[in-house]
Amino acid sequence: MKIVILNAYQTKFGELWERSLDDLIFEAIFETVKNSNVNIKQIQSIFIGNMLSGLTSDQNHLTSLVSEITDLNVPIIRVESACASGGMAIAQACQSIDSGQFENALVIGAEKMTDLPPETIASSLMTAASEEERNCGLTFPGLYALMANKYFTDFGAKEEDLALVPIKNHFHASLNNKSHFPFEITLKQVLESGKIADPLKLLDCSPITDGAAGVLLASENFAKKSSKNKVFITASSIATDTLNLSKREKITEIKSTRIASKNAYKQAGVESKDINLAEVHDCFSIAEILAIEDLGFCKKGEGYITIRSGKTKLGGKLPINLSGGLKACGHPVGASGVKQIVELFNQMCHSCGSRQTEIADIGLAQNVGGTGGTSVIHILQKYR
Amino acid sequence: MKIVILNAYQTKFGELWERSLDDLIFEAIFETVKNSNVNIKQIQSIFIGNMLSGLTSDQNHLTSLVSEITDLNVPIIRVESACASGGMAIAQACQSIDSGQFENALVIGAEKMTDLPPETIASSLMTAASEEERNCGLTFPGLYALMANKYFTDFGAKEEDLALVPIKNHFHASLNNKSHFPFEITLKQVLESGKIADPLKLLDCSPITDGAAGVLLASENFAKKSSKNKVFITASSIATDTLNLSKREKITEIKSTRIASKNAYKQAGVESKDINLAEVHDCFSIAEILAIEDLGFCKKGEGYITIRSGKTKLGGKLPINLSGGLKACGHPVGASGVKQIVELFNQMCHSCGSRQTEIADIGLAQNVGGTGGTSVIHILQKYR
Repeated sequence: MKIVILNAYQTKFGELWERSLDDLIFEAIFETVKNSNVNIKQIQSIFIGNMLSGLTSDQNHLTSLVSEITDLNVPIIRVESACASGGMAIAQACQSIDSGQFENALVIGAEKMTDLPPETIASSLMTAASEEERNCGLTFPGLYALMANKYFTDFGAKEEDLALVPIKNHFHASLNNKSHFPFEITLKQVLESGKIADPLKLLDCSPITDGAAGVLLASENFAKKSSKNKVFITASSIATDTLNLSKREKITEIKSTRIASKNAYKQAGVESKDINLAEVHDCFSIAEILAIEDLGFCKKGEGYITIRSGKTKLGGKLPINLSGGLKACGHPVGASGVKQIVELFNQMCHSCGSRQTEIADIGLAQNVGGTGGTSVIHILQKYR
Repeated sequence: MKIVILNAYQTKFGELWERSLDDLIFEAIFETVKNSNVNIKQIQSIFIGNMLSGLTSDQNHLTSLVSEITDLNVPIIRVESACASGGMAIAQACQSIDSGQFENALVIGAEKMTDLPPETIASSLMTAASEEERNCGLTFPGLYALMANKYFTDFGAKEEDLALVPIKNHFHASLNNKSHFPFEITLKQVLESGKIADPLKLLDCSPITDGAAGVLLASENFAKKSSKNKVFITASSIATDTLNLSKREKITEIKSTRIASKNAYKQAGVESKDINLAEVHDCFSIAEILAIEDLGFCKKGEGYITIRSGKTKLGGKLPINLSGGLKACGHPVGASGVKQIVELFNQMCHSCGSRQTEIADIGLAQNVGGTGGTSVIHILQKYR
């Protein structure tokens, strides 16, 4: 697979009271296409990732909404896969270009989450879990807390180790003016923040965020006409697993990430050790630790030690979540997976200013739905 | 495009109080795979079409739900495009096989609609319309009534002409034990049924239905190993249009259907006159009349005259909605577009008993979202 990224754009992430879902989608579409050397009338297909618009904006049928916004009659496809909806949209777009069906595809991820009371949005998000889990009164913090506790038992990590994830990601976000929380936090602040589901505290949890992101993809042939960029998606892989955490063999790994990343490495012809930078799905601190392990960046049980070493921080050998991640850049559900690609693209174009990593030739994005019921992996490579 | 249909299955459609969304999906998956000569473990990808599960069953993340049901970790993709969700799932599956990404794909369409009070389901369905339309108090019957009234003005049709659509489709449904309403209705019954939105009466409107359908698709190469069938999907086309009816050039045509069908005919190398049978999106009587015209089966403004001639009834030259259509077979939203393919497949295999049409070599399915904001067209061909 060799899909060219022509352009990428992210709206400001945050509590955007003055912006509707339509506004966010509109901005993401036109800003992504702008400066791409492609006219909107040349767009051949659009893929949109969104989870909750029916619940939060009384709006399904985003395919037609996007047709109206763009004044295009082209094929438009909406995909939903909980918090992996954005990555799923990228994957479907890649496939449609790789198949030769379209020469280009615009991908939009968007979510408007702050118009509803927190308890309503929390119950909306629980539609990504199983009926049994909902009926037990479990929440996503609760589910990930179960994973964290078992991880502590098996591998000896502590609350202080979890805290290293948001501290790092807030540091990265402090250098990103598009982020929801562009400021640093301290160990003391994390440990003293309110308990949400033991051992997860408020500052271990990604926030409720509004935002959108867009990526314009094209075949090599189409891109020749218009692009000076040399960033390609070279692997796109999806895997799934049970909805119920209790039905998994292990709860200290995300099996779908292991399967999808293994396939992605094979597809791109690279190994985990070749990756220079990654955006991973840090919905809760424990999730980033598991991701690092399941993606093969270190041995099982050593994710927190890897983070402690500084390797995954800006300046380290494998910086992770330079955008600030879901935790600090924010987590507008359907947008998160697309924003990961935006960040990797910008890093690989060396346009990230003070949070620019030095070597950015091979990047990886991991986008997860639920507690790992869905994983989508993309690998980006730069050719000079 | 030449995608083999290995097997197809439809659950009973109706008010299935005793069945959950999970139950319906489960039945559709295993019955579709059964007798296909394919083992469930051989399935390489699954596509699911559903509109309302987040609203009606508190369940998004169907990708993971299906992983759990099937005990598979393969790529599973959910698409949503209002009432065209099922057709959209078929289209994405076709593309994934056509691209060589997968050798086979299981497509499931499902919707559980009767667990909620009618006013709640009505407002859920309005998430397929625009915010402006919702704010005007418009409903889908109201929107289609506007189209019908304008059609009456322009082309001289009357309420009696609309009634011919449900009378025909109920006749077909009376021969289909899977249909929601397996009985005939009379002109008097239609005309005397309660006004919903003038000129549309209760018996001009498709019902709220539970149900699921499945289709197992494969590449020619994969199918060689296992199939005796000779029914292929030879065209798959999507087009979109504005969400707001008021922003269209004309409200007496479905522009997205015109565009998508033109592309589909070209792709399959056939013309509208070659079609032997069709399943079209008769959500309201007027929709079937417009469909017949927009698909090129007759001239604009002559759809109702074509229906009056008997051509589109079982025994006619171009039987339409032999399943009973959305009106009488029922309209479980995400399932409808998949069920259309099931019906065409069964007709083309000559396994439809008393509602079997004689010549079934080239079939067409038209699946519409909203008032035509999305159209998905598939053409099926039989090779002897």
